[in-house]
Amino acid sequence: MTVRPFTTKDYARRMERAVSQAAGAGLTGVLVTPGPDLVHFTGYRPTAITERITLLVLDADHDPHLIVPVLERPDAAAAPGAAAVTITDWADGSDPYAAAARLLDPRGRYALSDSAWALHLLALQEALPESRYTSMTATLPMLRAVKDADEVDRLAAAGAAADAAYEQIVRVRFAGRTETDIGTELAGLLREHGHSQVDFTVVGSGPNGANPHHEMGDRVIAEGDMVVLDFGGLKDGYGSDTTRTVHVGPPTEQERTVFEIVRQAQQAAFEAVQPGVACQDIDRAARKVIEDAGYGEYFIHRTGHGIGLTTHEPPYMVAGERQPLVPGMCFSIEPGIYLPGRFGVRIEDIVTVTENSGRRLNNTSHELRIVE
Amino acid sequence: MTVRPFTTKDYARRMERAVSQAAGAGLTGVLVTPGPDLVHFTGYRPTAITERITLLVLDADHDPHLIVPVLERPDAAAAPGAAAVTITDWADGSDPYAAAARLLDPRGRYALSDSAWALHLLALQEALPESRYTSMTATLPMLRAVKDADEVDRLAAAGAAADAAYEQIVRVRFAGRTETDIGTELAGLLREHGHSQVDFTVVGSGPNGANPHHEMGDRVIAEGDMVVLDFGGLKDGYGSDTTRTVHVGPPTEQERTVFEIVRQAQQAAFEAVQPGVACQDIDRAARKVIEDAGYGEYFIHRTGHGIGLTTHEPPYMVAGERQPLVPGMCFSIEPGIYLPGRFGVRIEDIVTVTENSGRRLNNTSHELRIVE
Repeated sequence: MTVRPFTTKDYARRMERAVSQAAGAGLTGVLVTPGPDLVHFTGYRPTAITERITLLVLDADHDPHLIVPVLERPDAAAAPGAAAVTITDWADGSDPYAAAARLLDPRGRYALSDSAWALHLLALQEALPESRYTSMTATLPMLRAVKDADEVDRLAAAGAAADAAYEQIVRVRFAGRTETDIGTELAGLLREHGHSQVDFTVVGSGPNGANPHHEMGDRVIAEGDMVVLDFGGLKDGYGSDTTRTVHVGPPTEQERTVFEIVRQAQQAAFEAVQPGVACQDIDRAARKVIEDAGYGEYFIHRTGHGIGLTTHEPPYMVAGERQPLVPGMCFSIEPGIYLPGRFGVRIEDIVTVTENSGRRLNNTSHELRIVE
Repeated sequence: MTVRPFTTKDYARRMERAVSQAAGAGLTGVLVTPGPDLVHFTGYRPTAITERITLLVLDADHDPHLIVPVLERPDAAAAPGAAAVTITDWADGSDPYAAAARLLDPRGRYALSDSAWALHLLALQEALPESRYTSMTATLPMLRAVKDADEVDRLAAAGAAADAAYEQIVRVRFAGRTETDIGTELAGLLREHGHSQVDFTVVGSGPNGANPHHEMGDRVIAEGDMVVLDFGGLKDGYGSDTTRTVHVGPPTEQERTVFEIVRQAQQAAFEAVQPGVACQDIDRAARKVIEDAGYGEYFIHRTGHGIGLTTHEPPYMVAGERQPLVPGMCFSIEPGIYLPGRFGVRIEDIVTVTENSGRRLNNTSHELRIVE
């Protein structure tokens, strides 16, 4: 499947939506720094994110305005959304914050990219002491969290590619090979299936699977191991992220039991997805199954996170997050049980919210797959 | 050359120095987030920098304290400096900023890592409205800018490796190959010479060389091209960054002239290096040569930047930077002339400040190298 490239019009529409959402939230405007927010609004991805400020200013009173270091102007001007913004550059030795301040309302309230450098925020606060800032995801949580149909198509294509890589990796021999060896092969498969970037390939075998943050290591996988495979990256600019737990040879009774609890927890959370349900209730649905089975203390992370231009972004399926689900949101559902020193199990699909329920963007089987 | 690994003692000493420098600057303490600052103080480099806050708190009243997401605790505890810090974790669903605020003086003044996410700074400002923050490089510019002997050794080794890669790449045929092809080969050479990470390989041929930010592309290099080669990355955790401009076949008279001006500008800036000289005077020394030759408007960037755990950090050799040089500082000297649509020339060495002058950490010839 080839994707339709986003056009200047698409970017212009996104910037208009941001301005209107900002007004709705009582904000003067939106300040965007390099990273996924800037890619979302302009398609521009600077080579590196540095101490030289690049800032997109969106508000109701002016056309979109992008401030860039003069060195980076040619790159910025070549971005697909550049035709919809006015570009101003600044040179080394001049004060870019003074230039930025001239575009801002001295008493304005702005939503700012979460990952904007503190260096830049502190300088803006100093340049305009009466201005106020909030984080983009706190005040405009819907801005990137709700995907349009083209974006969901890209996420579905990335998910299908990850599924295809999974179907191939489970056919190889695991026993006798290191985690790193399997992970490297899996990363290669993701690239073969069109990923331009692999963000992570977790291969957590045996006790390593009980550390959800373990990536991969020198441990040699052996008969009898549970193996957590969690992998993802970017395809055509949008993310994949899926987890399956496989077993080398026949599992024990307890391994089967723990696996089945996680499978049911994932299913329960998936079935809870519909517009209007709070994010925390998706977490709650998965957690309840695991708690009821007596393993609550071994499910040590939230149930999921959003996905889009990054493999990890709002909304978060976590206790305390009251944000209601909205059609077009895309996020992971990934409950797990981690038994320290023994093994871990996690099952993860990306799910998108439809008009009345959820739709999985990963579709490989949830049965416990036995590998060699 | 094998490097001595930094020990817990080294990290403890760095944290003590930070606390004492903070006190000297009238600050309560130092707040460090993931990235090079955290590597400097603890050796800890989280797998990813995310919205989940990790924060090292350094002040005179407490032992160093590191707040980490519970999932990342095992990784943090395994860092070489971990034995010198108290680790507290926080779980999804709890409020990490409340936990951080309990470790801070509600009316304290803190220096914060430049690249800390605005998300985190805004949350700390909200949790402790009377607290005040400044950027690390603004208030404690010496903290990472002055390297100790072990660090200078690592930078020298990285520079020697980059020099070795350069000596090999100029022996290959350039004419008829694309910039990307040459750049890929150069990146491979950097890795062969011990770089664990390649940050950039600029191959700017002909008119592309006139865009100092151009990385590399599909342009086929031809006889008669000037080619700017700017490359660097990390070896044993410390950076290399060097530029040489080569020519395919015999240069024209004007190419020789422009090259010679840049060579003299680089030499003049290098000769200006000694403790006590302001950073801006290094820039001034290079710029004067280029201005006097009538090419001032074509030197469109500052003369240099610091290098250490990153390939790009303070101090900056730029107009307005009054910071005096101090023995142990390491930075680039990289003047250039860029003639739009025609060609560019840049020569760059990393230089360290000694007791009474400068010492180059790149030592390949500054003569215009003719390649095939």
